[in-house]
Amino acid sequence: MQGLSSYDAWILTLGTEVVQGRVINTNASYLGRRLTLLGFRVVGNVSLIDDVNIIAKYITIILDEKPSVIVTTGGLGPTYDDRTLEAIAKALNKELVLNSDAFNMVKKKYETRNLPLTEERIKMAYLPNGGIAIPNPIGTAPGCWLEIENSIIVSLPGVPQEMEAMWESWVEPRIRLIGPPVRVAEILLKIIGVPESSLAPIIKNVLKQSPSEVYIKSHPKGEELGKPVIELYIMSSNRDRERAVEIAENIANRILDSIRKGFEASIEILYRNIT
Amino acid sequence: MQGLSSYDAWILTLGTEVVQGRVINTNASYLGRRLTLLGFRVVGNVSLIDDVNIIAKYITIILDEKPSVIVTTGGLGPTYDDRTLEAIAKALNKELVLNSDAFNMVKKKYETRNLPLTEERIKMAYLPNGGIAIPNPIGTAPGCWLEIENSIIVSLPGVPQEMEAMWESWVEPRIRLIGPPVRVAEILLKIIGVPESSLAPIIKNVLKQSPSEVYIKSHPKGEELGKPVIELYIMSSNRDRERAVEIAENIANRILDSIRKGFEASIEILYRNIT
Repeated sequence: MQGLSSYDAWILTLGTEVVQGRVINTNASYLGRRLTLLGFRVVGNVSLIDDVNIIAKYITIILDEKPSVIVTTGGLGPTYDDRTLEAIAKALNKELVLNSDAFNMVKKKYETRNLPLTEERIKMAYLPNGGIAIPNPIGTAPGCWLEIENSIIVSLPGVPQEMEAMWESWVEPRIRLIGPPVRVAEILLKIIGVPESSLAPIIKNVLKQSPSEVYIKSHPKGEELGKPVIELYIMSSNRDRERAVEIAENIANRILDSIRKGFEASIEILYRNIT
Repeated sequence: MQGLSSYDAWILTLGTEVVQGRVINTNASYLGRRLTLLGFRVVGNVSLIDDVNIIAKYITIILDEKPSVIVTTGGLGPTYDDRTLEAIAKALNKELVLNSDAFNMVKKKYETRNLPLTEERIKMAYLPNGGIAIPNPIGTAPGCWLEIENSIIVSLPGVPQEMEAMWESWVEPRIRLIGPPVRVAEILLKIIGVPESSLAPIIKNVLKQSPSEVYIKSHPKGEELGKPVIELYIMSSNRDRERAVEIAENIANRILDSIRKGFEASIEILYRNIT
């Protein structure tokens, strides 16, 4: 790897069942949250049907964005439509090769269950050339960590428990080392009595005077006793923990001051968080 | 519109809060499900941060796939980062123009609430030139229906209740008219006692002898009393309702026969469905 060109990240959640909406995409929100709190800018999430050509095409498109990290979920299993690593190999013009670590992981899983190593099971041990096998403590399909030029492609299974266990025990400690050295402060406010369209110019004004590592978003949550309810999310990231908190608190205070000048609003802090 | 070139559909769920994982993307699964059951092939779902250039870029990329329908959610509100329609206009090289229907919808909403029409509120009435305003029975931001060459771009708000109400009352009746004249039959089986890697060659074999409008997917669901549990989803679509059901039942029976020959498995039908 030649060194990261950005702290951008993309997530690819692969599987026809996700695209067709039979499964709610909790993998995307889990990974989006983890990468954001590590200080990465998660730019997008792409879900695709199990079509090796379409997956390879979008891996090529996303690699062209020069993200530091691409995480894929799904398509590592033994069935005919599990072809994520084949698509990655295709996009990178690499060979799929039998990885000895991956092979031993798969072999061991089936030995302890007294099941033979069939063609479908051995298929799970083929990784793009240069890939490192990621152990799967729950299921059978190993993951894959692949470093190429300025990006890392991490491929994990689609089953949430397996994906999360592999992320937390193996992937995140390594990603943390290459990520930006930042801390993230978050504040979530509940504001009752101010319409979103009245809040908009207040936020716009506060943002104008804020550092760039600040993110503010209002979420309308319907009404309570005829008054509009809005959740307002404020996030700031900074190398310095205290500074991250200070910026977020400062923004919250400026927004609350503006609201109190124009509205009889009720305001509650739903949570404060610091990574 | 020159006529649809395919029955492919793509979904774009826009919003930094979705990409960062603070909101679980239920809009994608809702729309994926509805479009699939109307007979469309949903190819992908793309979630992007609120960046007008990135959104415009991916709208261009997806238009290049020549889908018949693109549905976008999010980014129609009054805040500074609600810029979906601007991105669509940019991708299509169209102007954003004040749409009189949309303007009247927005005006009426604020009049009944005794609130003035500010710049932020009027912003919601600007649609790409040629767009048709979609009424929002719950919130304030109108949607947009835009026909271009061989595709329709439908833009809906990100708030699920608004999006779903607009989809069901206004969009789906129109999409149904241009969709393929098919019915979809589904069967979901629960199979206990067969590892997914043993089911894989059985499915592969059955698929080889099946018509192309068939989709089969196995989902490992952990173990019960030490035995692997798999949910097996079978879907078939056909112009003829009876034929769709017949094909799905036939495939289920062939898979179950193969399983019974090789395994002591327990099998349960979780549901049958026909659109």
